[in-house]
Amino acid sequence: MTSFLYRCTTCGKAYQRDEVRYLCPACAKDYRPGIPLLGVLSVEFDYVAIQRRFRKQSPDWSLFSAVEPEHYPPYPVGNTPFFPVAALGQAFGFENVWLKNDGLNPSASLKDRASFLVVAEANRLKERSIVTASTGNAASALAAVCAAAGRQAVIFVPESAPKAKLVQMVLYGARVIPVRGTYDDAFRLSLEYTARKGGLNRNTAYHPLTIEGKKTVGLEIYQQNGFRVPDAILVPVGDGVIISGVYKAFYDLKAAGLIARLPRLVCVQAGRSTAIHHYIRTGKYQNALRPATIADSISVSIPSNAHMARRAVLDSRGFSITVSDKEILRGQRTLAEKTGVFAEPAAAAPVAALRKLQGAGLLDCKEQIVLLITGHGLKDVDAAMSSIRIPAAKAATPCKAP
Amino acid sequence: MTSFLYRCTTCGKAYQRDEVRYLCPACAKDYRPGIPLLGVLSVEFDYVAIQRRFRKQSPDWSLFSAVEPEHYPPYPVGNTPFFPVAALGQAFGFENVWLKNDGLNPSASLKDRASFLVVAEANRLKERSIVTASTGNAASALAAVCAAAGRQAVIFVPESAPKAKLVQMVLYGARVIPVRGTYDDAFRLSLEYTARKGGLNRNTAYHPLTIEGKKTVGLEIYQQNGFRVPDAILVPVGDGVIISGVYKAFYDLKAAGLIARLPRLVCVQAGRSTAIHHYIRTGKYQNALRPATIADSISVSIPSNAHMARRAVLDSRGFSITVSDKEILRGQRTLAEKTGVFAEPAAAAPVAALRKLQGAGLLDCKEQIVLLITGHGLKDVDAAMSSIRIPAAKAATPCKAP
Repeated sequence: MTSFLYRCTTCGKAYQRDEVRYLCPACAKDYRPGIPLLGVLSVEFDYVAIQRRFRKQSPDWSLFSAVEPEHYPPYPVGNTPFFPVAALGQAFGFENVWLKNDGLNPSASLKDRASFLVVAEANRLKERSIVTASTGNAASALAAVCAAAGRQAVIFVPESAPKAKLVQMVLYGARVIPVRGTYDDAFRLSLEYTARKGGLNRNTAYHPLTIEGKKTVGLEIYQQNGFRVPDAILVPVGDGVIISGVYKAFYDLKAAGLIARLPRLVCVQAGRSTAIHHYIRTGKYQNALRPATIADSISVSIPSNAHMARRAVLDSRGFSITVSDKEILRGQRTLAEKTGVFAEPAAAAPVAALRKLQGAGLLDCKEQIVLLITGHGLKDVDAAMSSIRIPAAKAATPCKAP
Repeated sequence: MTSFLYRCTTCGKAYQRDEVRYLCPACAKDYRPGIPLLGVLSVEFDYVAIQRRFRKQSPDWSLFSAVEPEHYPPYPVGNTPFFPVAALGQAFGFENVWLKNDGLNPSASLKDRASFLVVAEANRLKERSIVTASTGNAASALAAVCAAAGRQAVIFVPESAPKAKLVQMVLYGARVIPVRGTYDDAFRLSLEYTARKGGLNRNTAYHPLTIEGKKTVGLEIYQQNGFRVPDAILVPVGDGVIISGVYKAFYDLKAAGLIARLPRLVCVQAGRSTAIHHYIRTGKYQNALRPATIADSISVSIPSNAHMARRAVLDSRGFSITVSDKEILRGQRTLAEKTGVFAEPAAAAPVAALRKLQGAGLLDCKEQIVLLITGHGLKDVDAAMSSIRIPAAKAATPCKAP
């Protein structure tokens, strides 16, 4: 580990590590449920120390960690495959497309990375229970990591979450409270719960280490890419925390003098859940009205990390694009057929976006383009079923005499 | 790669690489559908060459590969987590229990390893289509690898396979033929298909490289364990190919002079699919009558690799044990609650076995024991649902005024 401060991304004020836990107290005064978070904290390391101590020959990634490894739960996350997918790229006219398949985390989504670090923090703070709201993946990840760490997960989740995600969290032994309402309702209820009952709240962006945990996917891409920066990374965006985490990885690497430029970050939203997209395009924020997309993991009305996500895209000279549910399901099929990777709908959104970007002039056909696959298709088999047909069974012909 | 011969595990006759493709022609004459395979071929490397060239400091595992890496499909398999699970071990009185979580292969089962190598072989032979019978996992693995390699998978599968597995294979673009019958029917139909129409048959053990592919899980365990041999490995057993593959890994390592002893291999079968268990116990082979277990991946009447599986257990001084469906489902829950790992029923069988072995005197409480998790729980969510209850949803309380 390296020493660090928390810095408020709204007002810029700095805090010592244990002086604050969630949002910047000054800015959080203006926060009320119903708008994106204000006062989200960002971890600011001693980058001079990292620069002095980091060696590419034997990289010590704990230098970039905001929790000491001794507190890590016994639940290995990350180290997921990063590899070129020539056939997929060629299908859309791009020559150098890569996948980072983060569906191969233990609970089958990238969210394991955030839960891992927040549970490590709970271990350090000796907090017995960890509370979250989630569209499904963050909750099943938290439940899994808590099981491994011997801690109690308390989970608020929309009752409409895919069955597989609900089964996961219950099986891992979490206390699950399905909510007859949206993710935004669950978010609010979980905040009320921790205010009343205590425990550590893991809500995404609300706890700053969710961003730090998700950051590790960016560090891995950098390392697996031979310590080079890809030209562009396409990221599915719901509440804006994953894209903020990817941004933070390259921000840290640049601040530590390891890289000279950021990859362009491309925000991919579902056409029916576009709050961050519009915010990036217009500079004016507005909640998404009645988000309803088959890509449940990115179906959000009030994206908690809207401000940081917008900055991530603008600072990296990236852009934003939306894709329809139909395009997403087609992208899911194309991804499976060309690469053998089965992604959940949200995770297939970057594939749909790549198809749409063909010939649009926003990505060069020779650039190195990374598609971030955030969750496994087995998380939501029914969604995939809607675009395929399982053939009828044939009777087995009788065994011929030898 | 190292040069190799095929040696018949029934009669001992050796063949050059391209002289045979499937079974030993001499012994296969006595084979007819309805009994375990005869004449299964085993790859015999030039172990002296491996011993001379292998370096632990920078291990070149391709020395142990029967296909040249240039033919490998663009589909990274393996490199799955291997880690200690103290809380799980303690629950059953064992002090040094580890998991090898092979559910984190791309198509979510260990079978990716076999399909990977057989498709590499198809690439070498320029065979366009690859045919298999499967209870579900081998088929979804083959479909995925074929998609990545641009080849055609043709799949015979019992129509009773879990929906998620069927969805996977269809989505990957395979030609799927659901069979109104058992795995054994599907096995026979797939052999008839290749005899009539050609293509490469990937049936497990029938194609010798399925064993070589699965072997890589054993090589990884050895490396991830700091180049040490665990004391015992518990393996779910259906048709006997996975346990034969694990055995082959350590056989090769011993033949190459890298290790001095084999790990004891423990065969774990479901109480309702016990052909290999009885064969090991009694020395007399008999097909399982009407196998019917919730652990669909190890539900087999006529295990294709019964003879080699029995030898693997006896040669390694291991033993065999059976577990009931109830014990399997309980094991699945315990595994999830203690480690955060969600395994499909077959893959939870080793956990059930470990519970049963507590105090039995067959495993020492201080030994290093590895549980091989062969498939992800998301492969069959309905099975897990049968042992849990998802709480009823609560109405979201209205947002309080700020």
